[in-house]
Amino acid sequence: MSQTADIGIVGLGVMGENLALNLESHGFAVAGFDLEATRRDSFSQRTAGKRAFTARSLAELVGCLKLPRRLLVMVPAGAAVDAVLADLRPLLYAGDVVMDGGNTRFGDTQRRILDLQGTGILYVGTGVSGGEEGALHGPALMPGGDPQAWPLVQPVLQAIAARAEDGAPCCEWMGPGGAGHFVKTVHNGIEYADMQTICEAFWLMQELLGMTPGEMSPVFAQWNEGPLSSYLVGITADILAHTDRESGKPLVDLILDTAEQKGTGKWASQIALELGITAPTIADAVFARTVSAVKDERVAAADILRGPGKLAAVEREAFVAKIHNALLAAKICAYAQGFQLLAGADREYQWHLPFATIAAVWRAGCIIRARLLEDIRRAYAHAPDLQNLLVDAHFAGVMAQCQQDLREVVATAALHGVAVPAFMSALAYYDAYRAPRLPANLLQAQRDYFGAHTYQRVDRPGKFHTRWTE
Amino acid sequence: MSQTADIGIVGLGVMGENLALNLESHGFAVAGFDLEATRRDSFSQRTAGKRAFTARSLAELVGCLKLPRRLLVMVPAGAAVDAVLADLRPLLYAGDVVMDGGNTRFGDTQRRILDLQGTGILYVGTGVSGGEEGALHGPALMPGGDPQAWPLVQPVLQAIAARAEDGAPCCEWMGPGGAGHFVKTVHNGIEYADMQTICEAFWLMQELLGMTPGEMSPVFAQWNEGPLSSYLVGITADILAHTDRESGKPLVDLILDTAEQKGTGKWASQIALELGITAPTIADAVFARTVSAVKDERVAAADILRGPGKLAAVEREAFVAKIHNALLAAKICAYAQGFQLLAGADREYQWHLPFATIAAVWRAGCIIRARLLEDIRRAYAHAPDLQNLLVDAHFAGVMAQCQQDLREVVATAALHGVAVPAFMSALAYYDAYRAPRLPANLLQAQRDYFGAHTYQRVDRPGKFHTRWTE
Repeated sequence: MSQTADIGIVGLGVMGENLALNLESHGFAVAGFDLEATRRDSFSQRTAGKRAFTARSLAELVGCLKLPRRLLVMVPAGAAVDAVLADLRPLLYAGDVVMDGGNTRFGDTQRRILDLQGTGILYVGTGVSGGEEGALHGPALMPGGDPQAWPLVQPVLQAIAARAEDGAPCCEWMGPGGAGHFVKTVHNGIEYADMQTICEAFWLMQELLGMTPGEMSPVFAQWNEGPLSSYLVGITADILAHTDRESGKPLVDLILDTAEQKGTGKWASQIALELGITAPTIADAVFARTVSAVKDERVAAADILRGPGKLAAVEREAFVAKIHNALLAAKICAYAQGFQLLAGADREYQWHLPFATIAAVWRAGCIIRARLLEDIRRAYAHAPDLQNLLVDAHFAGVMAQCQQDLREVVATAALHGVAVPAFMSALAYYDAYRAPRLPANLLQAQRDYFGAHTYQRVDRPGKFHTRWTE
Repeated sequence: MSQTADIGIVGLGVMGENLALNLESHGFAVAGFDLEATRRDSFSQRTAGKRAFTARSLAELVGCLKLPRRLLVMVPAGAAVDAVLADLRPLLYAGDVVMDGGNTRFGDTQRRILDLQGTGILYVGTGVSGGEEGALHGPALMPGGDPQAWPLVQPVLQAIAARAEDGAPCCEWMGPGGAGHFVKTVHNGIEYADMQTICEAFWLMQELLGMTPGEMSPVFAQWNEGPLSSYLVGITADILAHTDRESGKPLVDLILDTAEQKGTGKWASQIALELGITAPTIADAVFARTVSAVKDERVAAADILRGPGKLAAVEREAFVAKIHNALLAAKICAYAQGFQLLAGADREYQWHLPFATIAAVWRAGCIIRARLLEDIRRAYAHAPDLQNLLVDAHFAGVMAQCQQDLREVVATAALHGVAVPAFMSALAYYDAYRAPRLPANLLQAQRDYFGAHTYQRVDRPGKFHTRWTE
C-alpha cells in the first residue's frame, strides 16, 4: 500500500478507532497505527473488508498516505502528543497536515505551532466532542491552527461531522493558534455547568418533593420537548428510567455520589480567573464535583452540622414548573459566562472567534447540543459584538419570564438546606450583571485603607488616596 | 562601612523602606539598596541619624553585611526577583541567606530553591502581610524554604513581627520549599472572601434596609466588639464614617464601584481548582471583583434585565442581626475553605504545615487578623488532623447558631434581587459538606452514558459501565 490512503490515524483507542470507521464510511481510505499491537489487531479486525490499512510503524503509516498527507493524532493529551510529533517530524514534508484531536490545553497547541514554524508542516488542534458514539456517527469538530491547513482538511472533517437540523456540518474553522482547543475547553466548561444544574434540578425533586427516579424520568422527557431540549436532558430521562436488573431498584439510586473529572472544566475555570472573566457557575460546577468526592468527610459531617428545622412540604406540581424555569435561567447564565470567556480570550489572543459559528457547530454532535444553541447562533449572527448573551432581546425575554422562579427555587433550597451551588451562582451572576451599582466601592476603599491602592471617584476623573483615619 | 550591618534590604519601595525602619527600630543595623537613585536618596533621608547605610551598588550592600549575610529582597514578584538573584549569586558565600518578601507565587520560590541547590546559599520565601503600616510597626511573617536558614533569620524576623495578645510573635516557620509563600497566598484568598462578605453585608443594609453609611458605621463598630472583631470590620466602620471634605457626603458613596485586584486571590482559586479543593467562596470573591469591573456593561444591562417586583420592606433591626450571623457563618465557611486548601497543598507537597501555628501567626499584623483566629488556632492545636474547621466542636456550634440566619439572608437577597455571591456559595458549601448524599450519582451516570467513564456502586465494590439505552 503506497500513497493511497486519504488520512492516517495515530492512536487507535476508542476515539481514534471510531473516527477512523466514521471516515471510512464516508468514502475515505484510512490508515491506522498504534504503538500497542493489541490495538492494531483490534483495528485490523474491525476494519476487515473496508478501505482501511493497519500500519505496523509510524513510517509505514506516513508512507501509505496521499500527498499532502493528512494525519489525525488521537493519543492522550500531553507528553504523548509531543512524542508522536517528535517521531512524525522527520517523516513529513512541507505542506503535510498534522491534526491533534485530543483534549489538549490550548497553550500546548500554541506552543506546538511555534515549534513547527519553519518546517512547513501545517498544524491543527481540533476539539472533538460527542464521546464514542459521536466519533462513530458524527461528532462536533472545532478545528483551529494554521489557516493554510483548513482547505486541505475541510472536506474530510466536514464529511464526518454531525449535521445540524438545517443540514450544516458541525465543523467550522475556529481561528488561528489554539483557538480550536480553546473553544473545546469552553464547551466542556459549559458541559460541567449543564450537568451540575441538571443534577440540582433532579436533587430538588428528590429532596424537596420526594419524587422517585421513575417519577422524575417523564418530567425530564417532557422538558426535552421544550426550550430545555438537549442531549443531556434527554439522557437524564433515560438514566432515571433505568432499573438495576438484579435488585429491581432504580440504578441511579445505587450509584455512588462521588463525581470524577478529567480536568477540562477546571481548565476553563482557571482560564476564566486568569483572563478576569466572571464564570462562577462553571467554577461552582467543578467545586460541586470536588465536594462530592470527599464522601467520607460528608458522611461524618452530616452527624455534626446542623441543618434547618423541619419545614412544610413543598407543593409538587407548581414547584416542578419553577424548577424547569430555574434550570432554563441557570443554563442561559452558564452559556452567557461561556461566551464571555470566549470573548475574553478573543480579546487577549486576537483570534477573531466566530461566535455565531461556534454556537452553530455546537447544535449537534457534541455533548452540550441543545435547542438553545440555535437561539444563541441567531443572537450572535444578528449582533456579532453582542456584549453579553443575557442582553440579547430573546434571552433577556426568557430571563424575564424565568428569573422569578429561579429566585424562588434558590430561596426555597436555601431555607430547606439543599445545596444548589450552580443555581445560586447563576442567580448571583444575573443579579450582579444587571446591577448598575455593586458594593465594590467599599472594597476599593478597604484596599486604599490598608494598601494605599487608590480608588476612582464617580464625580471626577483621576486616582485618589485618602488617609482614612484622619 | 564593612561587615557591620545585620541585614541588607534590596528594593526600597514603601514595603522595603518600612521594613528597614522597623528593623532599625528593633536594634538592627540595616543597609539598603535600590536600583533607582531617587529611592536611595529617599532612604538616606528617612534613615538619617539611624543605624542605617545606603549602598550605591549591590556589591557594596553585600560587602557591608556581617557573615553569614542576611538579605531581604523586596522587589516586585516575578522577573525582578530572578534578576536580583542572578546579580547576588556571585557576590554571596555558602551559608548566606536570601529572603524574598514579595507576593511571589510559591512555585517560583520552589524553582529558585532548586536553582540554588549546591551553592550553599540558603533561600527563604516569606509571606509578609499588613500593608505599609504593618511593615513599619509589625507585620505577620510567613517564612518557609531552606530549614537551615530559620535559626539564622528567626531572631531578626520575630523581633519585627506583630505580636498576638498572648505576646507570641506573628512569625513562625511554615515549612520547606514554597510553604511560606503558599500560606501567604491562602491568606490572601481568605482576605478576598473576608472583604467580599463584608461588602455583601454592607450592600444588604444599603439596598434592603435603606441604611446610610453614617447609620452603618456604628453597626460595624459594634460588630467589631464581638465574634466578628477583625481589622477588616474595624476599617469598614472607619470608612463608612468618613465624610468627603468638599461635598460633605459620605466618601464611600463617591467611590467608583469597580474593584481591582493584584492576582493573589486568583492564584488561590486556581490552585484550589488544581488541587481539587472546594473553595467556592474564595473564587466567588474573585469573580465579584471581575463583574464589578465591567461597570459600563452593568449600567447598560440594568435597563434591559428584569428584576423582582417591589417587595415589602424588610424590618431593619431584626434583619441587621441576621446579617451579623450570616456574615459570621460565611466567614467561618471561607476560613474552612482556606484551611482545606492548606491541607490539600500539604498532602500534595508534603510540607507538614503547622495549621495551629498558621492561625496563630495570622492573629495580629496581617490584613485578616481577627478574634476568630484564636479559636481556629485552638481547634487545630486540639486536633492537628481536624478534617474540616466546620466539624470542630466550637465552630460547629457557632454554625448551628448562625446557619438559619444565613439561610434567611440568602433567601431574602435572592427574592429581592440583591447579588450576594459569597454568602450564597458559603451556604452552598455548608449544605454540600454536611450532605451525606449529593446528586453526583446522576452526574456519574451521565458521564458513563456519554463517555463510558464508568461509575462506582453503593452496594458493592468495583467499577461499572452500563449500556443505558438497553
